[in-house]
Amino acid sequence: MNVFNDEIVKRILEKTRTIWAVTHALSLLSWDSETYMPPKGVEERSVAVGELTVLRQKLLLDDELVKLVEKSVDKKDLNDYEKGVVRVLNRHIRIAKALPPELVKELSKTSQEARVVWREAKKKDDFNKFKPYLNKIVELTKEKAEYLGYDDHPYDALLDLYEEGLLTREVDRMFGAIEPGIRKVFNRVMEDGDYPSTHPLEGEKYDEEKMKQLNIDVLNIFGYPFDKARLDISAHPFTNNMGIEDVRITTRYEGFDFKRSLLGTIHEFGHALYELQIDPALKFTPLAGGVSLGIHESQSRFWENIIGRSRVFVESFYEKIISRLDYVKKYSPEEVFKYFNTVKPSFIRVEADELTYNLHIILRFKLEKLLVSGEIKAEDTPELWNQEMEKLLGIRPRKYSEGVLQDIHWSLAAIGYFPTYSIGTLLSAQILHHISRDIPAFNENVSRLEFDDIKRYLYEKIHRWGSTYDPKTLLKMSFGEEMNPEYFLKYIKEKYIVS
Amino acid sequence: MNVFNDEIVKRILEKTRTIWAVTHALSLLSWDSETYMPPKGVEERSVAVGELTVLRQKLLLDDELVKLVEKSVDKKDLNDYEKGVVRVLNRHIRIAKALPPELVKELSKTSQEARVVWREAKKKDDFNKFKPYLNKIVELTKEKAEYLGYDDHPYDALLDLYEEGLLTREVDRMFGAIEPGIRKVFNRVMEDGDYPSTHPLEGEKYDEEKMKQLNIDVLNIFGYPFDKARLDISAHPFTNNMGIEDVRITTRYEGFDFKRSLLGTIHEFGHALYELQIDPALKFTPLAGGVSLGIHESQSRFWENIIGRSRVFVESFYEKIISRLDYVKKYSPEEVFKYFNTVKPSFIRVEADELTYNLHIILRFKLEKLLVSGEIKAEDTPELWNQEMEKLLGIRPRKYSEGVLQDIHWSLAAIGYFPTYSIGTLLSAQILHHISRDIPAFNENVSRLEFDDIKRYLYEKIHRWGSTYDPKTLLKMSFGEEMNPEYFLKYIKEKYIVS
Repeated sequence: MNVFNDEIVKRILEKTRTIWAVTHALSLLSWDSETYMPPKGVEERSVAVGELTVLRQKLLLDDELVKLVEKSVDKKDLNDYEKGVVRVLNRHIRIAKALPPELVKELSKTSQEARVVWREAKKKDDFNKFKPYLNKIVELTKEKAEYLGYDDHPYDALLDLYEEGLLTREVDRMFGAIEPGIRKVFNRVMEDGDYPSTHPLEGEKYDEEKMKQLNIDVLNIFGYPFDKARLDISAHPFTNNMGIEDVRITTRYEGFDFKRSLLGTIHEFGHALYELQIDPALKFTPLAGGVSLGIHESQSRFWENIIGRSRVFVESFYEKIISRLDYVKKYSPEEVFKYFNTVKPSFIRVEADELTYNLHIILRFKLEKLLVSGEIKAEDTPELWNQEMEKLLGIRPRKYSEGVLQDIHWSLAAIGYFPTYSIGTLLSAQILHHISRDIPAFNENVSRLEFDDIKRYLYEKIHRWGSTYDPKTLLKMSFGEEMNPEYFLKYIKEKYIVS
Repeated sequence: MNVFNDEIVKRILEKTRTIWAVTHALSLLSWDSETYMPPKGVEERSVAVGELTVLRQKLLLDDELVKLVEKSVDKKDLNDYEKGVVRVLNRHIRIAKALPPELVKELSKTSQEARVVWREAKKKDDFNKFKPYLNKIVELTKEKAEYLGYDDHPYDALLDLYEEGLLTREVDRMFGAIEPGIRKVFNRVMEDGDYPSTHPLEGEKYDEEKMKQLNIDVLNIFGYPFDKARLDISAHPFTNNMGIEDVRITTRYEGFDFKRSLLGTIHEFGHALYELQIDPALKFTPLAGGVSLGIHESQSRFWENIIGRSRVFVESFYEKIISRLDYVKKYSPEEVFKYFNTVKPSFIRVEADELTYNLHIILRFKLEKLLVSGEIKAEDTPELWNQEMEKLLGIRPRKYSEGVLQDIHWSLAAIGYFPTYSIGTLLSAQILHHISRDIPAFNENVSRLEFDDIKRYLYEKIHRWGSTYDPKTLLKMSFGEEMNPEYFLKYIKEKYIVS
């Protein structure tokens, strides 16, 4: 069905097809860089990516396109899809026009250098090496926020880049609400000892070929369409979409602690399903992609945590696991469930459990806000990081590499990105609330490893729309309410507090 | 070392870097389509390729670029590299400007349809299905030749697209010279029976994993740099270069008749080595690629035929072969050599041996010339094909699929392409003459499986220059003579006529 009828929007879409094609190519270049590119291809690849990124920006700022979009912004007689096209393009054009090319270039250059320096500094545990780069990135990022504009807090401008329309005060409110709640559950779990902090399965080795089969099993059970999707290997798992009929995920095989590979695969499946279930009518348009990082992460977290780490899923999937990984037989389904849900304060965000994960994000958000508002400088971050870590998680980094140098994001100048991880986690619990109400047999479905109803639900509520609605409008329309962190607190209480 | 100093050429190269990037992306899209793309990705992929191809054309015809190039065409104070840049771009611009976009679109549309129809027609052995498409393609191709322009024969304009500067009368002369010579040697071989027409090894099955190892062995022996090159699998083997530090070849594993996989790999290695040995100073420029299809094919044929099918190579490589493919032990090195060099008239060009291969090309060239000059129509081709086949190879197709529908090229509208295959074969023998004279230890090197001197020779004479010189200039400069088919006749006489 053709959903675009307005003549101006149709002309806009003709022009943006080329932009779509460049994005398609950039996606493949990026996927290839992490999977099959020979190592020495890196220089030519990075020149190509740089050139194509500039070219895409030029196509976006094409005079005719900009005029057509601006002319359509206040047009009343557009349907929701047509409005979506105009909204998305207008936003991209506004951002592209707001930022002076010199600033973009300077930020890109600085972050390219900073990434190398950060890696070195982390290895040598030498914060002083990285400090000037962090200061420079913060200064440039503050400039960027000024150019982008904001009503209240400069951090608003940065948040919006990753999560359209999200405001600092909203994050403040949500994080303020969950911090004490999470800490309470966390302390209880530490006291009760019902959820172990380590598990013998973490040390058990697996055969890579068998692990790969198990990953394919779980994807087949979820109905991952291998005729328009792939599973490959990369150092860090990711999802990349060339379109809605060519979506690719990766996982990793470390040879031990099989949940890392399995839950990583399930996480990426959640991202992939979002792209795969976008309405085919949106193909080749600016709407043919997930709407924001937070909504995207809600999908990956839903499959990884809400389904993948649930007792009912583990119990049902157990047979498959032991049919591939013979050594797991020594453990009962309940023990595998506990293994999937160990709770342990750790310095490393990406290895954090469901409970402590958001505390890591809260810490980073607090520091980023202070950096961007100018209340602190790079030199203040190591001590502040350690203090917050102790306060939130009860552990204190012994070295920079466990603390302020832990994450790559600041070296990438991706300030404002972290909160979207938590948004996704919180939303996944909110979706659980609604899906359990709307599909009363939700648990039975998972238990029977039948996911068609669940996938159809996600399709109707989120996936099919692509970027048609901004995140807030989408949530309101699909669930009748805005984002509410209470669902997450309810979820962790029910899961982790054994009464 | 920077070889570009002229200010205008430097400005030209700044502008063409974007074109290089789009070409880089198109190469990866093409490689991916044949290797890893999920099947349903094909629609989005073909839209992306179409858009990027049009975009590249637009970048090529950019006003400033065209003016800079035209201004530089007669500039006297340019070095050879700078002249090369101007020559290559001027040629591309001339071709792009000559062809009306409607004709290009019509040809592309027709050939896309024709490709599907040809496949169907070949399967059903129904020439009538394909006939109207062939007629239309020929008509459009004749128009194309008129727009491109030529001095003597319309076929000149088509040849030039694939082999810069090659004229129909030159091909006439060369093919006229080799046809009787090849047929004489061929008839002698058929009478003598020294080279068998079939071999028991053709039916022997191999284990795919072991065959893959053998292909990697031969590539390692040749010094294939796996840090900037890959070997993958595809239905039809090919080479694709993303740049000079990212070159990828493919081969196929049919499970039997191991020479097909091995010699296919060696053939593609020859193509890859050309790209890999281009002077790094030419990176990102229009010179960073092989100069023509014929010169490219001379490299693949040199490694496949001159080296790979030689007695001295087979004798030395034999140990490796039997270490991977145990069953080959039953055969002596001499028997493996004969297996690599069976001679048998066949209907299928791609399966033809060294001797009959050029006869297949001569047949196609004769028909193409007659079609383009208007002397025959599509309906005349089946009978003419069969007559020529009988005359040249002594066998007569029993059905269209063995005759006029055998090759895909006409359905792709690639008329004028075939002769480059023979050019490559003829040149490979000419290179053998020169390398044997310039490196007297050539045979000993091959026998010791030492290829450094040979690779350095090809680097100096051909590879390093990329597209700096047009094919004829390159040959003249490197070997002091123009293309001469006599070397090929000498080569086959020495190899096949056992005195």
